[in-house]
This record gives sequence, structure tokens and C-alpha cells, in this order.
Amino acid sequence: MISEEQVRTNLKNVIIPEVERSLIDLNLVRKITINKTKIKVTLASTALGPEMQQYVTTGIQAAMKPLKIDNVAIEFIEAKPTELNEVKYIIPIMSGKGGVGKSVVASLLAIALNRQGNSVGIIDADITGSSIPRMFGIKRRPTGADTGIMPVATESGITVMSMNLLIPQEDSAVIWRAPLQTRAITQFWTDVLWGKLDYLLIDLPPGTADAPLTVLQSIPVTGIIMVFTPQGLVEMIVKKAVNMAQKMEKKILGVVENMSYFYVPELDRKYELFGHSKGKIMSEAAQAPLLATLPVDPELARLCDDGEIEKYDIPVMNDLAAAVTKAVDKIGAVTK
Amino acid sequence: MISEEQVRTNLKNVIIPEVERSLIDLNLVRKITINKTKIKVTLASTALGPEMQQYVTTGIQAAMKPLKIDNVAIEFIEAKPTELNEVKYIIPIMSGKGGVGKSVVASLLAIALNRQGNSVGIIDADITGSSIPRMFGIKRRPTGADTGIMPVATESGITVMSMNLLIPQEDSAVIWRAPLQTRAITQFWTDVLWGKLDYLLIDLPPGTADAPLTVLQSIPVTGIIMVFTPQGLVEMIVKKAVNMAQKMEKKILGVVENMSYFYVPELDRKYELFGHSKGKIMSEAAQAPLLATLPVDPELARLCDDGEIEKYDIPVMNDLAAAVTKAVDKIGAVTK
Repeated sequence: MISEEQVRTNLKNVIIPEVERSLIDLNLVRKITINKTKIKVTLASTALGPEMQQYVTTGIQAAMKPLKIDNVAIEFIEAKPTELNEVKYIIPIMSGKGGVGKSVVASLLAIALNRQGNSVGIIDADITGSSIPRMFGIKRRPTGADTGIMPVATESGITVMSMNLLIPQEDSAVIWRAPLQTRAITQFWTDVLWGKLDYLLIDLPPGTADAPLTVLQSIPVTGIIMVFTPQGLVEMIVKKAVNMAQKMEKKILGVVENMSYFYVPELDRKYELFGHSKGKIMSEAAQAPLLATLPVDPELARLCDDGEIEKYDIPVMNDLAAAVTKAVDKIGAVTK
Repeated sequence: MISEEQVRTNLKNVIIPEVERSLIDLNLVRKITINKTKIKVTLASTALGPEMQQYVTTGIQAAMKPLKIDNVAIEFIEAKPTELNEVKYIIPIMSGKGGVGKSVVASLLAIALNRQGNSVGIIDADITGSSIPRMFGIKRRPTGADTGIMPVATESGITVMSMNLLIPQEDSAVIWRAPLQTRAITQFWTDVLWGKLDYLLIDLPPGTADAPLTVLQSIPVTGIIMVFTPQGLVEMIVKKAVNMAQKMEKKILGVVENMSYFYVPELDRKYELFGHSKGKIMSEAAQAPLLATLPVDPELARLCDDGEIEKYDIPVMNDLAAAVTKAVDKIGAVTK
């Protein structure tokens, strides 16, 4: 007789195109019943509109063909995204200060974790200044239904949800007061079908106000990564964010110094454009390790502008991902 | 007989220490009555606590001494700061994006305008990420009374109000939801005694949400200066801010490109760290002139960190101030 494992393996070939993930990865398969002549697959209809349900039905029937059973019944049941989302580690990327490169750090970390074989999602929680879709050059639009919304996949298969994927033009202003913004961020967690993920990174907007408050209060975060640049000013403002995290009793996984220096190969010289490294000071302030020190790199700026950040590859990205993996391993998965 | 003009001239010597401005500059002198043997000065008590009222009384009597009239009566009346604030030009410094250097641009512009003989104030409207006091190395704390609050003066006499002047430690987190932040910003205008100013610059936080909305809706702004860096990403997000200003029918005075390049004198080479100049594109998008192009300068970063930004002096600062003066001249003073 056919095993449930065989059926599951074959269902991994049924892929939702926009998100480039299978029914299994999205955790949509709720039950599989097998008897000699019949297979019944119970699927959550979450985030699947009528067309997608049809597409999935056809896909499942095709995927079952090799098992030589013609009687394949498909039943759709309702489920909330939060019932299906199984994320091991949820990590907000935070900084009191704007422009320190939170989005870039979140993206580089996502890319490196993904290259190391993890499934990774990114919530772009910067509602009025979303930049993740642009850096990854995402052209797709999310699909969905009343029951939920699908994120979209980047070139290398990182799944993303961002306000910029939902507005008519990427430079339209989102003139939303905070309660609306806050609701949008919460919905990126409660209403989006992330499915099974190893890592969900949350790119927070600057400040210590509504958005970070909401995320820290309402989403079960594993720990925070604090990003800063070597300016004394930034140090002060990032300390506010550290202060906030501590007040809210949230773990800080580590700190990342961005724009640390600019290397001129012709002179073999490092220019500290924004001041001396604050790695040690910030690590002490946050009582957390310095996970990485990233340079200013015109090549990275160019790739971000061209939507090709996934082509970037410097060794420190992998070190960062390894350091994060080590930090979360100590804590263990919080969301099941 | 003594003229009112003489009295006014002498009252210019009565200085409120924290703000380093005279009773005349603060517009506190409401009426002067002179007869042969008596001078009566009617003063608004706005932002003057009992001790300051005593201090001012003593100061006025001393200032009247040279006029050889011993009978000097001083009467205090109540007035709201908004009745006394006479600001010629109110200019928010805006950018959809964080970290592009709004605070630095606002400060450099204030310094250059001040050097050119203008009286200048700065509202630091970035409630959760205030950085103006740190850059100017302001150690003073604002004084005040129920009737209003005094800003504090920088080394060179620019007057400043900032949340960081009101909190116990500069790295304390201000974990305020938006309505509180919005109220604080509004109060920096309605409850602070700015007196007579040529320019009041408002350093806005990033985004197109509550803070910029509030400022643009509730303060009579002359026109906006948009700050950006040459990244394509920033271009997109700053366009959101331009879009917002246009939707709200606010004039954009001009755009400023910050962190445009890094000059290495040894190689006589300009490195475009964050991409090609977007000056032309942004000027076209905002339908406003490019007011200045500022470089990345480690010396400026150092001065900001050391609270000595007022020591910075590069020609482009003066060009910026001149361009702004030209732009507002065309519009004319909006606030009387």
C-alpha cells in the first residue's frame, strides 16, 4: 500500500507559483487519508482564491499520477494563517536610527541564511519607507483570498511581504497615521501565509515608537538584532532602542556595525567615514555579541539600486549568518 | 524727553541667559509708557517663572539707569507663546528616508544662516531619535513656567527645542505612541517662546506618517527642503515624501543631496559611495531647484560626535544658505 510519506513527497511537487513554495512547505496539507483505491487530501484553503484552488486541484491530481491511483479526492477546509505558520526563529532587525542599513542587513542576513539551506521570510515592517522589494527587484504581486494572503518569492526563493507590494506604484506615498501602520504590520504576521520557515526576519522602521512596540508586543520574537553605524549620534539613538528592548524584556541576539569603513584598494587604506568603530561599546551596551562589521561598498549600493542584492557575496555575510544561527541555537525555537 | 526707541535699545541689554536672547528679541516687551519722571514697561510673563521674573525686573532697572529715571515700573501680563512668536520663514527639513542626514543638513543650514546675520531657531521634531542637541553639544536645560517654555541657545546663539533636552538622559528611550509624539511636536510650536526669528527650521523624523503630517497640517510652513542621498532606494522613498507634500499642496523650496561623494585627496578622486548623483532627477521630481550637494566628510562626523558642529565651515554651506534665502524671498514671509 502507498504510504503517507510517499504522498507527501509527491505533494512537494505542487508549487504555488508566486511564492515558489510547495503545499507541504506552506503547511496547507492538513490531512492525508489512504485506502487501497483512494487517496483523500485535506487542504487548508487559506490564501487560495477560487482560481488557485482549481490550479492546486489539478496539480495534486497530476502529482498523484505516478502512484497509480486514479481516485484522488481533494477537500478544502478553512484555517487561519496563524494556525498554519510554523516559524522556528523570528528575528526583528532594529535600530533607533534611520538610514543605518537595517534593510540591507536584514536582506544580506536572509540571503546568507537561505544559501546555507534555511527557508527564510522577510516582513518589511517599514510601512511608509518600504525598501525590501526594490533591493530584491521583486516584480510579482501577492495573491490571496479573504482567508489570507501569500507572500512573494525573490529570485533565490526568500519569501517577502511588504507594503510596497500592495500599493499601485512604488513611489506612492503611504500617508497613514500610526494605528493604520500598526495594523498593517500586525496583519503581515496574522494574515500572511508564511507556512513552515526556519527564519522570519522583520525589517523594522526606525524609532522606538509604534511599529517596534507593536512587533515586540504582538509577535513571538526569538531575539532582536540591533544595527548601528559608528557615529556617536547613532550610538546614542541605538542605545534608546537597546533601552526599549530591555524595558520590554526582549533578548538581543547581537549587534551589527554597518558602514564601518570604506576600503580604497589603491592605497590599501581603510577610511573610517563616520568615526571609529563602536562595535565594542555597542556590544557592551546591548550585552550581546558583535555579530558582524560591514563596510561601505559602492558595489552593494549599485546592486541594491538595480534590484540585484542577491548577487552580492562577501565572506562576512556568511559569518553573520553563522553567528545568528549560533545565537538562536542557544535560545531554541519559540514558535511551533 | 526720553524716546521709546531709547528705552527699547536699552532693553536689548536685558538677556535671558539660557536662550541668550533679549526681552526685545523674545518679543516679551508689549508696551512702553513714558512720561517725564516715569517709565512703565509692560512685559509678557510668558515662559518666565517667579525667579526669572525677579531676574528680569532687576535687569530692566539696571538697564534703565543710564536714562537717569529712577521710577521704573514693571508690569507683567499674560500672553501665549503663539501671540509673541513672529517667525518670518518656517522651513521643515524633510525626507521620506531615515539616515540621509536631515539633522545635519538642518544644522548646517541653521549655522550658515546664523553666520549671515539671521536669527535662527530649530525645532527637533524627531521625538524618538532627537540628535540636534548632541551635535551642538548643548548642555543647558530649558527653563519655563506654566505659560510657556524657553528654548536653549547653542554656542553661536541658535535657539533649539528638542525632546532630548527634556528627558533625564540622552539615551533614555522615548517609547511614545504617535498621538503623544504628535502632541509634543505641536507643543514645540505652540508652547515654546521663540520670539522674533528670521528662520525656524523643523528637523522632521523620517517617513510620511504622523510627524510630517502634523507639522504640515498645523504649522504655517513657508516651504519644505527635501534631503536625499544618491541611492536609488532613497530616491524612491524621497519621492513618496515629495508626493505627500504635493498632495498636501505644500511648496518645496528645493532639494539637497547629502553624502554625494567621498573625496580622497591623495588620489584626487571622488568616490560615489552610494551611487551616481541623483540631483537632477530629484530636482525634476520635486519641481524645485537643487540647493546644494554635500560630500561625506569624516571631519563633519567627528565634529557632530563631539558636539562641535558649529566649528564646521565649508563653502557649500554658505551657498546653501544663500540659495534658501533666495527661495524664500520669492515667497515672502508667511507668519507675522
